[in-house]
Amino acid sequence: MSNVTNQANAAAFERICAAEPLLLDVRPAIEVVPGMTPATVLTSGAPRTWDEYVGGQRDAIVGGALYEGLAVDPEGVDREVRAGTISIGVCQDHACVGSLAGIYTASMPVFVVENATTGEHAFCNLFEGPDPQRLNYGIYNQTVADTLDHLRDVIGPILGEAIRAGGPIELKPIMRRALNMGDELHSRNTAGTVLFSRELFPRLLEIYERRPRDVRDVLEHLSSSDYFFLRLSMAASKATADAAREIEGSSVVTAMVLSCGDFAIRVGGLGGDWFRAAIPRVDAKLFDGHTDDDVEFMGGESCLAETVGLGGFAQAAALTLQDYQGGSPERMAAMNREMYDITVGEHPYFRIPLFGFRGCPTGIDVHRVVETGITPVLDIGVAGRGGGQIGAGVLRTPLACFAAAAEAHTARYGHHESLQLKGSR
Amino acid sequence: MSNVTNQANAAAFERICAAEPLLLDVRPAIEVVPGMTPATVLTSGAPRTWDEYVGGQRDAIVGGALYEGLAVDPEGVDREVRAGTISIGVCQDHACVGSLAGIYTASMPVFVVENATTGEHAFCNLFEGPDPQRLNYGIYNQTVADTLDHLRDVIGPILGEAIRAGGPIELKPIMRRALNMGDELHSRNTAGTVLFSRELFPRLLEIYERRPRDVRDVLEHLSSSDYFFLRLSMAASKATADAAREIEGSSVVTAMVLSCGDFAIRVGGLGGDWFRAAIPRVDAKLFDGHTDDDVEFMGGESCLAETVGLGGFAQAAALTLQDYQGGSPERMAAMNREMYDITVGEHPYFRIPLFGFRGCPTGIDVHRVVETGITPVLDIGVAGRGGGQIGAGVLRTPLACFAAAAEAHTARYGHHESLQLKGSR
Repeated sequence: MSNVTNQANAAAFERICAAEPLLLDVRPAIEVVPGMTPATVLTSGAPRTWDEYVGGQRDAIVGGALYEGLAVDPEGVDREVRAGTISIGVCQDHACVGSLAGIYTASMPVFVVENATTGEHAFCNLFEGPDPQRLNYGIYNQTVADTLDHLRDVIGPILGEAIRAGGPIELKPIMRRALNMGDELHSRNTAGTVLFSRELFPRLLEIYERRPRDVRDVLEHLSSSDYFFLRLSMAASKATADAAREIEGSSVVTAMVLSCGDFAIRVGGLGGDWFRAAIPRVDAKLFDGHTDDDVEFMGGESCLAETVGLGGFAQAAALTLQDYQGGSPERMAAMNREMYDITVGEHPYFRIPLFGFRGCPTGIDVHRVVETGITPVLDIGVAGRGGGQIGAGVLRTPLACFAAAAEAHTARYGHHESLQLKGSR
Repeated sequence: MSNVTNQANAAAFERICAAEPLLLDVRPAIEVVPGMTPATVLTSGAPRTWDEYVGGQRDAIVGGALYEGLAVDPEGVDREVRAGTISIGVCQDHACVGSLAGIYTASMPVFVVENATTGEHAFCNLFEGPDPQRLNYGIYNQTVADTLDHLRDVIGPILGEAIRAGGPIELKPIMRRALNMGDELHSRNTAGTVLFSRELFPRLLEIYERRPRDVRDVLEHLSSSDYFFLRLSMAASKATADAAREIEGSSVVTAMVLSCGDFAIRVGGLGGDWFRAAIPRVDAKLFDGHTDDDVEFMGGESCLAETVGLGGFAQAAALTLQDYQGGSPERMAAMNREMYDITVGEHPYFRIPLFGFRGCPTGIDVHRVVETGITPVLDIGVAGRGGGQIGAGVLRTPLACFAAAAEAHTARYGHHESLQLKGSR
């Protein structure tokens, strides 16, 4: 048994729970994202070669490059990427977190979130709105471009001004309340969105005198979808998970990401290595008119939420999801309970009412996953062949990448019997 | 078996479910409440003689009269009431619904809610704010008077202007969403309050240019407490329950009310008669420093919510109440399930996520209460001796008044075997 690993995992759990994500600003990516250049496109998932990006994820990357004016047509993008004048990077290497295909280009506005405990920053771009045709779902056309322009020219700047004027907004208390109001902060963000809107409203009043129409646009954007807050939950989760990176000996997962071709994880004590596995079938509830054959994976890093004890790890707080992604209250509670068997401890601040306010299962230990055979469950949005959202569901992650990570961990640190901390109520 | 009663109960259930409460306005009571006069004080519960109003409820009535300037001291109020120059009425006879002591005087602003299905109006006054010292909890002093002035001069008029300017606000969709966000719309109204606030924001923008400070005060009022929406839920419940009154043959409860001395119900087929019983002990969770001996009943009609399938009848939608009023998720779910045994049907629109979106148990049949021995449960705020809120809890209503009502119903309509409708998903 490795005391080093148990201590490291306890430290990882502690850092995750101690994170204090603050929303500082909204800025164009080029101004704040580390390593961003005018010709960079960031996308979701562990790194792949250009030819390995296929389907909707490739379409989204191409769309991002076109939107940014890096080429005039898809063939041009392909040429520039091969020539190295357009650079494709992955979100996780740039402190960003990608929703579905997760496209970031220089001019796109991003939320700037700081973990006040560590001082580190994380970034997430803005929700495009309720239209199922979105760049992050692999679609690029004039409508999508207009939406992105509106985010860049109106929504982003007004949000940024409101946030700066009133000072940083603490996201953790909003997230805690949202868990008491039916959100799990991945596939359901209704309460988070309304609570955040209320926080913003007094700040918007002063801007209203100068820019009445723009402020009305922001209000419209905030109330037109219940998913606005997802990007803040994702940025907060990324800022939180990053606090558990690079802890010598830790077998706790610090990132889970999807690309069009694989599911991959990183582990705290194993540096920047990605452990990959094929994507399994998702148990999805599809919008009318779609079948399982239409499902296509095009990336996704919103499961950073599950990495820090939210989403599928808090689904018993969001039973209305039975209508959106399928399942029954009993099944959701049972899946949620399973997650206690593979995590280091129970979150002292994020709690689940249905479980008598038991803390969310937090800090996935790859050894426990292998020992129990229970893999993390993710609440995810489902994209369709040809682009667009076609449903939502629960993804049971594949064992192979956890097994590979556990093996690498054992090779480096020796045999380990995992210890589970118990949260206190 | 009485077909008349089964048909009447089905009609009562139907009318309750079909109600469409709209918020039309906020107006001084004198302008809108039927039968209101400059020298009237309305209070909660079935009617009592002046000498029967004791403790906090009497203090509240006296406070209301003093606030309205109907006398200069408590002795003066007593003289004027005995002389008949101050008139004490009960809320339920004036289309009002009282929170705790439930004091209405002429100048107080009230929400004007219409059931669009019937065209009938119901009224509820405004939440005084988070300070445990409130008139409706039996306290009257300068602080309380200042709060009431602020409601009358700023909060009420601005709310009224915002509502009128944007047109009626549909309350039913807000209530439905709130049930999906952890409210049961009696002891928890957090989601309702935030959702209503969001509805109001765009309307407040235009008023802001003319009255910036007052609009900020309204925002402060809206965000300072999660109970703001309770008064709207109450007015909506009253407008809804009233639709089931005066249905020949109906054994469905149309009102449940508390005074300082009794719990009383009215039944659809039994005219305006009140059936009364002594108030039982409440299973309460008290704020720190209080004991059961401190509990005092001073009235309350917010259980109109339970009358139409909310509150205790939807508590499984609001499991966070385990922290506020005690109990466990399992116990709350079990109590909620019991209510299906005494109700006519399942609400087609108000649904409970934990029960797989089963509709709320709706339409209490006094015969079923007597047959099963199961009496309605109410989520209530608990007042303390000497005034103020000291906790919250669950009240199991007494059987006696349901038994008396069932007996009167049988005497009038003959023996009845109750029929339970089943809601459809």
